[in-house]
Amino acid sequence: MRGLIKTKPEPGLELQEVAKPEAGAGQVIVRVKATSLCGTDHHIYRWDEWAQSRIHPPRIIGHELCGDVVEVGPDVASISVGDFVAAESHLTCGVCFQCRTGSAHVCKNYRILGIDEDGSCAEYVRLPARVLWKTSRDIPPEFACLQEPLGNSVHAALVEDLTGHSVLITGCGPTGLFAAAVARTAGAGLIIASDISDYRLGLVKALGADHTINPKTDDMDSVMRLTNGEGVDVALEMSGNPSAIHQCFRYVKNGGRVTLFGIPEGQVSVDMTNEIIFKGIRVYGITGRRLFETWYRLAGLFKAGLNIRPVVTHTLPLERFAEGFDLVAKGQCGKVVLFP
Amino acid sequence: MRGLIKTKPEPGLELQEVAKPEAGAGQVIVRVKATSLCGTDHHIYRWDEWAQSRIHPPRIIGHELCGDVVEVGPDVASISVGDFVAAESHLTCGVCFQCRTGSAHVCKNYRILGIDEDGSCAEYVRLPARVLWKTSRDIPPEFACLQEPLGNSVHAALVEDLTGHSVLITGCGPTGLFAAAVARTAGAGLIIASDISDYRLGLVKALGADHTINPKTDDMDSVMRLTNGEGVDVALEMSGNPSAIHQCFRYVKNGGRVTLFGIPEGQVSVDMTNEIIFKGIRVYGITGRRLFETWYRLAGLFKAGLNIRPVVTHTLPLERFAEGFDLVAKGQCGKVVLFP
Amino acid sequence: MRGLIKTKPEPGLELQEVAKPEAGAGQVIVRVKATSLCGTDHHIYRWDEWAQSRIHPPRIIGHELCGDVVEVGPDVASISVGDFVAAESHLTCGVCFQCRTGSAHVCKNYRILGIDEDGSCAEYVRLPARVLWKTSRDIPPEFACLQEPLGNSVHAALVEDLTGHSVLITGCGPTGLFAAAVARTAGAGLIIASDISDYRLGLVKALGADHTINPKTDDMDSVMRLTNGEGVDVALEMSGNPSAIHQCFRYVKNGGRVTLFGIPEGQVSVDMTNEIIFKGIRVYGITGRRLFETWYRLAGLFKAGLNIRPVVTHTLPLERFAEGFDLVAKGQCGKVVLFP
Amino acid sequence: MRGLIKTKPEPGLELQEVAKPEAGAGQVIVRVKATSLCGTDHHIYRWDEWAQSRIHPPRIIGHELCGDVVEVGPDVASISVGDFVAAESHLTCGVCFQCRTGSAHVCKNYRILGIDEDGSCAEYVRLPARVLWKTSRDIPPEFACLQEPLGNSVHAALVEDLTGHSVLITGCGPTGLFAAAVARTAGAGLIIASDISDYRLGLVKALGADHTINPKTDDMDSVMRLTNGEGVDVALEMSGNPSAIHQCFRYVKNGGRVTLFGIPEGQVSVDMTNEIIFKGIRVYGITGRRLFETWYRLAGLFKAGLNIRPVVTHTLPLERFAEGFDLVAKGQCGKVVLFP
Repeated sequence: MRGLIKTKPEPGLELQEVAKPEAGAGQVIVRVKATSLCGTDHHIYRWDEWAQSRIHPPRIIGHELCGDVVEVGPDVASISVGDFVAAESHLTCGVCFQCRTGSAHVCKNYRILGIDEDGSCAEYVRLPARVLWKTSRDIPPEFACLQEPLGNSVHAALVEDLTGHSVLITGCGPTGLFAAAVARTAGAGLIIASDISDYRLGLVKALGADHTINPKTDDMDSVMRLTNGEGVDVALEMSGNPSAIHQCFRYVKNGGRVTLFGIPEGQVSVDMTNEIIFKGIRVYGITGRRLFETWYRLAGLFKAGLNIRPVVTHTLPLERFAEGFDLVAKGQCGKVVLFP
Repeated sequence: MRGLIKTKPEPGLELQEVAKPEAGAGQVIVRVKATSLCGTDHHIYRWDEWAQSRIHPPRIIGHELCGDVVEVGPDVASISVGDFVAAESHLTCGVCFQCRTGSAHVCKNYRILGIDEDGSCAEYVRLPARVLWKTSRDIPPEFACLQEPLGNSVHAALVEDLTGHSVLITGCGPTGLFAAAVARTAGAGLIIASDISDYRLGLVKALGADHTINPKTDDMDSVMRLTNGEGVDVALEMSGNPSAIHQCFRYVKNGGRVTLFGIPEGQVSVDMTNEIIFKGIRVYGITGRRLFETWYRLAGLFKAGLNIRPVVTHTLPLERFAEGFDLVAKGQCGKVVLFP
Repeated sequence: MRGLIKTKPEPGLELQEVAKPEAGAGQVIVRVKATSLCGTDHHIYRWDEWAQSRIHPPRIIGHELCGDVVEVGPDVASISVGDFVAAESHLTCGVCFQCRTGSAHVCKNYRILGIDEDGSCAEYVRLPARVLWKTSRDIPPEFACLQEPLGNSVHAALVEDLTGHSVLITGCGPTGLFAAAVARTAGAGLIIASDISDYRLGLVKALGADHTINPKTDDMDSVMRLTNGEGVDVALEMSGNPSAIHQCFRYVKNGGRVTLFGIPEGQVSVDMTNEIIFKGIRVYGITGRRLFETWYRLAGLFKAGLNIRPVVTHTLPLERFAEGFDLVAKGQCGKVVLFP
Repeated sequence: MRGLIKTKPEPGLELQEVAKPEAGAGQVIVRVKATSLCGTDHHIYRWDEWAQSRIHPPRIIGHELCGDVVEVGPDVASISVGDFVAAESHLTCGVCFQCRTGSAHVCKNYRILGIDEDGSCAEYVRLPARVLWKTSRDIPPEFACLQEPLGNSVHAALVEDLTGHSVLITGCGPTGLFAAAVARTAGAGLIIASDISDYRLGLVKALGADHTINPKTDDMDSVMRLTNGEGVDVALEMSGNPSAIHQCFRYVKNGGRVTLFGIPEGQVSVDMTNEIIFKGIRVYGITGRRLFETWYRLAGLFKAGLNIRPVVTHTLPLERFAEGFDLVAKGQCGKVVLFP
């Protein structure tokens, strides 16, 4: 089969023929119908410092996928050949404290698809049956493969209730865009989104944001005007940018909630007294998806009319992966979906 | 001024001229623009057993209102003449355990407008400043006066998160209808509503219910089919009907939530073992509105697009109150709004 | 090996020699050191209606146990020969909605040890590795085997915080006694316990209850006096007695919490309006133990000084099981522990 | 009457004769029986940068008190002459979003006793009736006056449940000491406390900490050994020291809770990715006491046996206030209580 492989410890990826995987006990083989690019994949492509320390070539990349189950190994009860599935990319250990108490998303020992195991940028991928998520065929493949990254945003946005609340979303990359769509579907009373890219602010507007702010050209203090001087109930930090993090702390109201999802590079200097303590706020660090509560919730959101179409700005055959990474590098895209 | 008064301990109400109230310390006078009929008002009109034990004539009825502040007494800081307001109808004591710990909606000593104090079915009403809720003039009076009953449904529906969840609503009187509208705006994944009136099922369909069931003619077990055999995440009991209460317990999934809001007449026989305990569910008894969290939440819901227009089936001048009560008696209405 | 077996569909049990079980994939064999009697076992012993409909002889009974792991089957990573363990008695399916969302205690398909599978009233028992709970050898066997029923009480009592709160416990059978011990360790501000047996009220007093009430001879309204007319923050119903259920609803304060754990026979007639709805309370149906959050919590409670010694009123060798059941029948015991 | 007054914008305080205050509408006069010194008072005494920017002399200091009500103004219903009371020191506005939604502890407009109004280091103090807290005379004055600072620790420690959980407390000043006492009473499974003062570690040991660590001489990584490599469930940061803040983030387990109460000077540099986001933790900024939930909770804790005696290391007559501040400056004390 064809697979997109980091063959050597250097920038770039190669599309090569490799052996099709086989299913062992508790495992299944999925014929990949669509797989989308994530920032992580881009780190691996560029071979930055993080990638050099984490990836051991050869490795097939890719962890956002959907496809058809074509083979089922021994001891698999819940999945059958022919099922249309997506997959949780965190391969959790099942025996640590976190796994045993309903917090497997922060499993102490989890492995990641496309990083620690061969991934989904290929015709076939092998997966443990327990991470598969049966998906309605009403959801087209270019959306179905996005359930993994979209789940991040569902988890980040809905760690507490949004209905009727005012929300600031800082950062309109894919997870920020998804968060806006989720907030809209969840009945947020006011959605303000900020980004330094007018292109992305256009996308978030199409997803239902009430107001957009480009901090390069606009005054972020308009958040206070838009909330009658109260500040927002909820701030979702989806950028990792230190300025945006401070804006979340500044513009959330006393007693409000800040969710941190975006990954800053390096340390961030925080005035804990005035930004967190005296405001009496709650701060959630969010990673991954709650297993499998987030996935069920997302299925419900699709039924409720969740519209992520504007986020899928580009679809390409797998062999044109380099074009995809160029788009990601330039930030001139929402999500790029590849079809193997 | 004119007021709708229970003048004698017998059925009926009279529209009479009475003295306009004056504002004491901490009080304001509101010129009523709209006031809607509640089941409670109908009990008083019919002079049933409950009304006979609770109401001491003469009493101006009415507790769902909006209007303009026309007079402000001493020691009122937060409200000004000219404000457009609705009002919380529970006049709480402010000093009991519940009031001091953020649960004033279950104040041990609260008095009710239109029952314990003269109410809003009149040209003017006197109210403590602290129960007023400033309302945007973007909301027309026939909706603004409905915030009080609508708040009941907001409280009942959103005592836990609905976003992405499946919901069964039993009973499509006004509070059930409102609950359906709230669930729709909140992004519920599936809304199933039941009632024995096809007229009301038509209204709930217009408010966004995905499926309606008339237990007289349809099989309630379709709830299981519609949820892939799982049952619903949430059941909202808005009817007070014993059969409906059992349906909520039956069709909620293990570990789910049942909210009880509808008031049954008399006792209800419950199989606690199988309906509650072994299912591991949570049951919430809901009354009134959280002060003032529910009101803020509702303001956000309106901004999110909450549409209650189909519920307001009839608007009448105050003097045609008898027509209003006839409609309520027949159940051929959503909400009836009177204009004094 | 010797096992205590329901051999025929009739009252009684027989201690017989049977084949020692062997461990399959994912399974282990435990040499039972202690196993305690539960009300369920007594139902099976008496062969009441429930038992007749549920148990298919031959069946070794018993589901509360501790012991040493003596054999480990293939594919078991987390347990080793020589481990001292207790066991979760609910053998959950792992694939249903509840199991996949952290609510396996209400798994739709669970099987129960000693009912659906051969149990622990024997020298050896076979168990899936995933239900085992490694236990500190600091905890003596007669306490270690009680973690399963004690976990019920931990779950029931701590479904919400008890620290600093006032608590009414109705029913001082073993789970009520355990609940009192848990409430004491959790820093409840006031613990009132009721039972119709003065013997059991003596036990609960020894476990730290501040006040005991025998509703046959005392006035239950003393709950109001003891709480300055407020009622309790939390009522834990551990008896299944309808009068006690009503007392929980009556004596919990507005906005409080009622936990239902005791299993009533038949239906209970409830005044939902005044007992639940207008009081604005939360009612939790509780069954089993949260997997494995409750078990971790319990380990912490033991470290915090949880003292259950007064509950273990009788220890007997397995062959004297009939004496144990006599004690249970008379209610003249706390927990009866058998040593195989 | 005598009062301890910041008379001029310079270091120090003077004990002077001033006019006794009189009660206006909604106010009461309390004869102060005991008033304790807080870090804030020490800032004012030293006249540091914060004090210079915040305090406008002349001002009687002091905000931790208890005493007898000796005069009641008009419109006070809930308090009578002769009541023994403590007082909430945050004089909240009552009309902002936070005050109206049960979060008055983060009121946007609150004033502080002893800072914005004349305080309790005097024979008499004037207070709004609504901030008073009736206290059992079973609690001696030197403990009753400590309910305000103790409430901070109750709020910080119990913002989530501690029962059965492992806890790290960084910083054993008075609020850290109080937090340890609360955690002990709440049934924490393991309490580890750290401070750089062996004197204070001795105090926390007397309050029930299981293990103490002096980071100057001991290895903080022993937290991991003491928790079997898991880290703690909860970290309570009570010092404001940046190293301690990082220790909280480092030693809390994935999915755990960090409460920030101690006030750092200046900014703190945080590795949000690894300290918060990837760990999936919740961080609470805590200030003040929940009105009046925390006070009720504290009353329950006293009944549950909360022992704060070891914290009250020094009691002095008001005129020896300078000795008290010397003790605070040297850190050779728990709480210093003054008797006017």
